[in-house]
This record gives sequence, structure tokens and C-alpha cells, in this order.
Amino acid sequence: MKYCSECSAIVQLKIPEGDTFPRYICESCQTIHYQNPKIITGCIATWQGKILLCRRAIEPRYGLWTLPAGFMENNETAQQGAARETMEEAQAKITDVKLFGVFNIPHISQVYMMFSGEVKDGKSAPGQESIEVEWFEEANIPWKELAFPVVQESLELHFLDKVRQRVTVHYGDIIRDLNNKVTVNRY
Amino acid sequence: MKYCSECSAIVQLKIPEGDTFPRYICESCQTIHYQNPKIITGCIATWQGKILLCRRAIEPRYGLWTLPAGFMENNETAQQGAARETMEEAQAKITDVKLFGVFNIPHISQVYMMFSGEVKDGKSAPGQESIEVEWFEEANIPWKELAFPVVQESLELHFLDKVRQRVTVHYGDIIRDLNNKVTVNRY
Repeated sequence: MKYCSECSAIVQLKIPEGDTFPRYICESCQTIHYQNPKIITGCIATWQGKILLCRRAIEPRYGLWTLPAGFMENNETAQQGAARETMEEAQAKITDVKLFGVFNIPHISQVYMMFSGEVKDGKSAPGQESIEVEWFEEANIPWKELAFPVVQESLELHFLDKVRQRVTVHYGDIIRDLNNKVTVNRY
Repeated sequence: MKYCSECSAIVQLKIPEGDTFPRYICESCQTIHYQNPKIITGCIATWQGKILLCRRAIEPRYGLWTLPAGFMENNETAQQGAARETMEEAQAKITDVKLFGVFNIPHISQVYMMFSGEVKDGKSAPGQESIEVEWFEEANIPWKELAFPVVQESLELHFLDKVRQRVTVHYGDIIRDLNNKVTVNRY
């Protein structure tokens, strides 16, 4: 951020009075421009026990497999966003949508909200951001070609739940340190 | 948003090619300025079965009671944010922090992430944004003087859980329609 989006003056990065974090401040119109984490909302969509994955047609991680997910939009709920993303990326309509897990990814200031849902008729087709979409059994999940650690974590927990016959909402962190090492905290 | 924060040119509100939502677009430097929901993270902090509430020293809802909560910051996890807010607003240190519930408030594009936590020594004092802080038993909760519907919903669910002896993560929506009527959806 270089300029004030309200008045176009140059902004300064400073800690406002009474605050503890540096913010972009406009000294011309006094606007404080807060920047906060973003929510990614997505879905573990199932049909006859299989899971819907999308092969990414966009960067980052072009060509790798992911769960349908994307930035939550203003004025929608997270589950509406998960259904929208599943429709956009895999042209699949989910029902029985339930919160599956919440995952912090603090180094990129993102919070993933993953839902589970059923695609009753199994209909799906690649959307604009997918090269292909496919239904995978557990034995065939392309573990080595997943796009993001949060996708791996969600799938691992999904299959663990099946073994444990548990239905709980998961909560965890995915931490990438300065040496690029990923640590997963499950709470 | 009136001006591009990257180059200071005037922005236009338009649907970008391949998108379905209107965004602020800079036709000078081509930046698309996305706006997304914000996360509020907070805590139901307990000590000897009592609950910590803060009387707001700031607008909106000056003088009304709330749970310690505030905007999640970049590069923190939601539970770190909840602990930070509880320290800032009530000078109380929470332990045993667990995810309690997630609540969509789509009309203001907010998602609340509420945690539960223990304040082992019961120490608390008003922070800068609180007139006073107090420990309330269930019978004394100031139901008519709560600041926000999400505070009421969180407290109601907390006391329901005690009756049902359930520990699950709650998920719901708080919808305010154009006539200002509030509807709560519990999933």
C-alpha cells in the first residue's frame, strides 16, 4: 500500500496512538488502513465414498490437485462460499454442508474454513480454474501431487475420522517456518 | 475506495473478466482491489464457573457488555488473537483455549471465531477499551445490556452446553434483515 484509497495522499506505516501494531496511515485525511487475515472457504465433497479433487489450471501450484476452495466473499456465509467455490471450480452441487475444520495459516495470514458435503448425483466437470476434476477413492488420492499442506491435512483428518467414526470439528495450525519447514498443530 | 493504493489513480467498480463479483479496479496499473470478510476473534473466559464480560468504553454500543473480542491480526492464529484480545480488553490471561464456535454475520461481512478459555487466578482489570470488567454467574448475566447478538448467542450456547454436558464446536449465522430483524441459524 503506497497511497490512501480515500484521498490519494501518500500513506505512512506507523503505530497509531493507542494501538500496538503498525498500520498504513494517511496523515492527510487521517484514515487508518487496517489489513487483516483472509478466509478461504472450501469443501471435502463426497459421492459414494469418493472425494472430489480439482487439478489447478492457475498459479500457484498449477497442475497440482486441490479441494475446491477460494476466498470468501463479502455478504455471504462461509458455507455459502464453500458451495459457490465447489460449483465454480468443479461444477458440483453440494448438500448436507457441515463445518469440517478451521485451519490457521499465519505466515500468509489466511484462515481456511473447510466444510464437508455430499454431491448426491456425482455430477461434476472442470470449472474455469480447473484442468480436470476427478472422484478419488482413498487408495488413489494423489498424495504426492497435492497443491497445499492444508489439502493434505484435511484429507488425512477426513480418513482418520472414518476409522475413528468420529464427527467433530477439527481445529489446527499449519505453520511454515523461515526454512520452509511445515509443522501441523492439531488441537 | 476511491483511489488505487498502488498508483493513486481513480478506481472503477467493475466485474473483472472471468470474475462474477464487482471489484475496485485500477485501469492505470491494472490492480484489482479485492475486499473480503474480516475475522473477529474472542473468548468466553471462565473462572470458578463465572464468565468475564467487559463494559465497552468505545463505540459502537458504548456502555454495553461484551465478551472480549476484536479483529484478528495478520500473522497470528485465531486462538492467539483471542488470547491477545482478552489481555487487551480485560487484562486476563487465558489457558486451555479451545474453539467454541464460528458465527457468520454476512450483512457486515464478519466471521466471529469464539474460543473458550480458563483464567486460572481470576485476575482481570479493564483495558483501554473497557469501562469495567466483571465476572458474572449465569443468574446475573446482563442479558438486556449485551452489546451484540453474537454475544448473546455465544452465552446462550455456553449455558446450553453445561445443561447438555456437550462439548462440540458450534456453527451458525446471525442474519440482520432490512427491517433490522435478527435471525439466528444454528447448524
